[in-house]
Amino acid sequence: MEGLIKCSANYVPLSPISFLERSAVVYRDCVSVVYGSIKYTWRETHQRCLLLASSLAQMGIDRGDVIAALAPNIPALYELHFGVPMAGAILSTLNIRHDSAMVSVLLRHSKAKVIFVDYKLMDVACNALKHLTDEQLMPPLLVLISEPSSTSTHMEFDALEYESLLMTGKPDFVVRWPKDELEPIALNYTSGTTSRPKGVVYSHRGAYLNSLASVLLNEMQSMPVYLWIVPMFHCNGWCLTWGMAAQGGTNVCLRNVTAKGIFDCIASNKVTHMAAAPTVLNMIVNSPASDRKPFSGKVGVLTGAAPPPPHILSKMEELGFSVTHSYGLTETSGPATVCTWKPEWDALPLKERAMINSRQGLHHVGMAEVDIKDPVSMTSVPADGETIGEVMFRGNTVMMGYFGDLEATTEAFSGGWLRTGDLGVRDSDGYIKVKDRSKDIIISGGENISSVEVESVLYYHPAVLEAAVVGRPDEHWGETVCAYVKLKDGCTATPEDIIEFCRTRLPRYMAPRTVLFEELPKTSTGKIQKFVLREKAKALGRPSTSRMSSKL
Amino acid sequence: MEGLIKCSANYVPLSPISFLERSAVVYRDCVSVVYGSIKYTWRETHQRCLLLASSLAQMGIDRGDVIAALAPNIPALYELHFGVPMAGAILSTLNIRHDSAMVSVLLRHSKAKVIFVDYKLMDVACNALKHLTDEQLMPPLLVLISEPSSTSTHMEFDALEYESLLMTGKPDFVVRWPKDELEPIALNYTSGTTSRPKGVVYSHRGAYLNSLASVLLNEMQSMPVYLWIVPMFHCNGWCLTWGMAAQGGTNVCLRNVTAKGIFDCIASNKVTHMAAAPTVLNMIVNSPASDRKPFSGKVGVLTGAAPPPPHILSKMEELGFSVTHSYGLTETSGPATVCTWKPEWDALPLKERAMINSRQGLHHVGMAEVDIKDPVSMTSVPADGETIGEVMFRGNTVMMGYFGDLEATTEAFSGGWLRTGDLGVRDSDGYIKVKDRSKDIIISGGENISSVEVESVLYYHPAVLEAAVVGRPDEHWGETVCAYVKLKDGCTATPEDIIEFCRTRLPRYMAPRTVLFEELPKTSTGKIQKFVLREKAKALGRPSTSRMSSKL
Repeated sequence: MEGLIKCSANYVPLSPISFLERSAVVYRDCVSVVYGSIKYTWRETHQRCLLLASSLAQMGIDRGDVIAALAPNIPALYELHFGVPMAGAILSTLNIRHDSAMVSVLLRHSKAKVIFVDYKLMDVACNALKHLTDEQLMPPLLVLISEPSSTSTHMEFDALEYESLLMTGKPDFVVRWPKDELEPIALNYTSGTTSRPKGVVYSHRGAYLNSLASVLLNEMQSMPVYLWIVPMFHCNGWCLTWGMAAQGGTNVCLRNVTAKGIFDCIASNKVTHMAAAPTVLNMIVNSPASDRKPFSGKVGVLTGAAPPPPHILSKMEELGFSVTHSYGLTETSGPATVCTWKPEWDALPLKERAMINSRQGLHHVGMAEVDIKDPVSMTSVPADGETIGEVMFRGNTVMMGYFGDLEATTEAFSGGWLRTGDLGVRDSDGYIKVKDRSKDIIISGGENISSVEVESVLYYHPAVLEAAVVGRPDEHWGETVCAYVKLKDGCTATPEDIIEFCRTRLPRYMAPRTVLFEELPKTSTGKIQKFVLREKAKALGRPSTSRMSSKL
Repeated sequence: MEGLIKCSANYVPLSPISFLERSAVVYRDCVSVVYGSIKYTWRETHQRCLLLASSLAQMGIDRGDVIAALAPNIPALYELHFGVPMAGAILSTLNIRHDSAMVSVLLRHSKAKVIFVDYKLMDVACNALKHLTDEQLMPPLLVLISEPSSTSTHMEFDALEYESLLMTGKPDFVVRWPKDELEPIALNYTSGTTSRPKGVVYSHRGAYLNSLASVLLNEMQSMPVYLWIVPMFHCNGWCLTWGMAAQGGTNVCLRNVTAKGIFDCIASNKVTHMAAAPTVLNMIVNSPASDRKPFSGKVGVLTGAAPPPPHILSKMEELGFSVTHSYGLTETSGPATVCTWKPEWDALPLKERAMINSRQGLHHVGMAEVDIKDPVSMTSVPADGETIGEVMFRGNTVMMGYFGDLEATTEAFSGGWLRTGDLGVRDSDGYIKVKDRSKDIIISGGENISSVEVESVLYYHPAVLEAAVVGRPDEHWGETVCAYVKLKDGCTATPEDIIEFCRTRLPRYMAPRTVLFEELPKTSTGKIQKFVLREKAKALGRPSTSRMSSKL
């Protein structure tokens, strides 16, 4: 078409930085961040992020440099989400449960120029830096994020202090906007990979679009009050670090996640929304009455990371939470699907509602498509709720790839879709249901058993607090179902009780044959570490008396 | 950064078509469109749009072709918003108040290949086509949108019928997605330009982003019920044609906008949101009690097109509407700013709240920036609420330009900003307030008088239903203020009453010197046609006794 122009008046690279710049004016005097007695407004947060960006630029940080952070959900980590990209750099938030060896691996891989570290994690960071110097590598510059209560300890490395650093910045710093919206904004390492770290890269465009999609799928209106439970280092807080700036909301920071802390924060800050993995929901529903506080209105809760057991969903509802189930991966910038609730489901019995809501639903408005495909032929599975295929995505909120690993990127995108490695089905209403990670599927007597389905049943047992199911090697069946269970305080049950409970609710071949009571190993994001349990189950060896019995 | 790829897995051109594709699955059985006894689900709307796109493709419509439409807010016009771009074509919705001469000018300018026409507008369309054939031009193909009640009349041109056309389409049509997200999706002619039509072009990207921004500024959650009052032919219904598909909402169509019709629709469809120009709000607040119906819950109302008089805002609030004030132009895809409401304003007196809400606010989340600038030096005015400058925008939701008029496009974007021609100030809280269109400012004795401010006062007079103020030529003052007023039914007032009322509320030089009672000329979108009144005021001639009096 003639007469059209692309210029600065009508084309601006999409970037979450724009959310902060806008909120600094629209919501200037509204509270942006609360952390104990600390309170900032959006104007202040904007100013502080400018100072941060300026101080990074002054120390020589350039476009495309990586800045690492090792911190829980504290205001500084929130500010890094804007300050780092405003300096043209890329934020790499590290999991705070990593040990120093893992941190050093990731720092070496990302070539981070600076690392911002919470005062409680200085030991880990210093040891990681030592690993690097031991290898004759230049360690990143260390910035300590201290708190009034923190005591200074002797450190092996010189460190700047966060607030002092900010004071060196210039408030009139000119933001280094991305020249191309596909430039990287964040680098997020997926967990559990020491040998070959996978650094997932998000673009400014992807982050912008996923932030808006997250706001919409959380049903957030202007100025929501959001309680930070999901770590900001996990997919940048499912992109709500940026999304909250888009809506001019209040970020309620919480260092230690406890049921009491959550209820206290909800009551004192009038929290409207929060997000948490199912294990945290489990903690909430099993908390003693003394830890709870009443609150007015429904609190919207987004859950994901693992399919929430129906039992927990229904208990949360009873407590006044409205749970929305979302699903995604680090590779999809966090939330990628949402189980959109339909009004006609309101009238169904609680248990049925929970079953419906435990599905992953459909892609959100920022993602182009989710599909369940045969991974070889790439054809879609029928919407019969039974045929298993691989969950695949395509859309603008899918990562740009794995940093420095073109082979892994190419493999993940083979066929023009992001392959998730998750197995699922499509129900007749179009919604998808993830049955398992492909490696979590138990194959017993040739039948695929979804560990998630067995776990859902276990959670209905009144004595069960937490449960995880893995395959145990078996001479005859190949594998049998092995359940690791943590009982509620003061409750008792025998393995036989649990097995019997499952048998009345599941096909016989799906019920556990082995039940072990113990503490469950978890990642920092609250995911149960199945690979640890799988190793344990392997170590159990094959059962001595493997009965020959027909299936069922 | 190494290892990254841009491919179909992680890059998809932004397009509102994706909203419909998604809603066809997520909201498949939810009501998409209601029109009297007609009701479609999202699955049906998607199917119908596919058939429409397919039938257009079959008649030879190609990528980049223009398809015109001349229709009020009926389901077919909604479907054209998706069906046309799905065929790769560009939708040009025409103002239904245009006469046949104007329609022929626009069809000639756009080179439309097909025109879809509502049965009540067939005379206008046929006459327009006749104009074209008279000039030896090939007229566009005519498609009649009939209704069961419509009677077939003899027509000069052969016409296809909309429903029959759809039946020729193939349901498995493969959508022609834009290859580049900056490809045009819509062509909207601005009103009042016979000599040199200005065809504003929107891109798929701009439409996508403005749709999401509109959803957010309307504070819409999933599945809103939206009453169509704003014509879909006006900036594509302020982009909510597409936005409603993003949220899986229900589009309530209404052919004739009356107060009774509005209240009936709200009550029977449980409307949650609507949008309307201030003249429609005026009609609502002045409607007889017999036309009104009670409704439960607040109905969100977006208003714009002209600054709403505070008096009307406060009356709407009393009636149970929650009015959000937005501002924009055809060139900004409709809404570009929003007067975001702050909780601390809730406690203010009604009148003060209305004053605050009559401001235009700040740019929405999809726009990069709004500024008030000196049009020559391009420097920003101070935030003093007094210094007048030109309202300017930059961002992705600004048009791509004027079709076929590079000169006009270049002029509109000179300095790298969209120049609106509107004059405004910036308040100390950062919000902007539009004082007037630059051509609507009255200059009296060297003072700039905002016609909008005088009108706001006039609306407070208990007998005034509608008012518009223009400059009347004056020997001594250059111009004086001339008010055209329509009184409420059964009310009386003299010009002297009105003048006195204004003098007690405004500086003396701002009060009208002439008051005339008559019907006010309006555009189809409910805007008062000031250029008509200006011509009338000119024709009045200079006052015979122009008193010499000192300014006050």
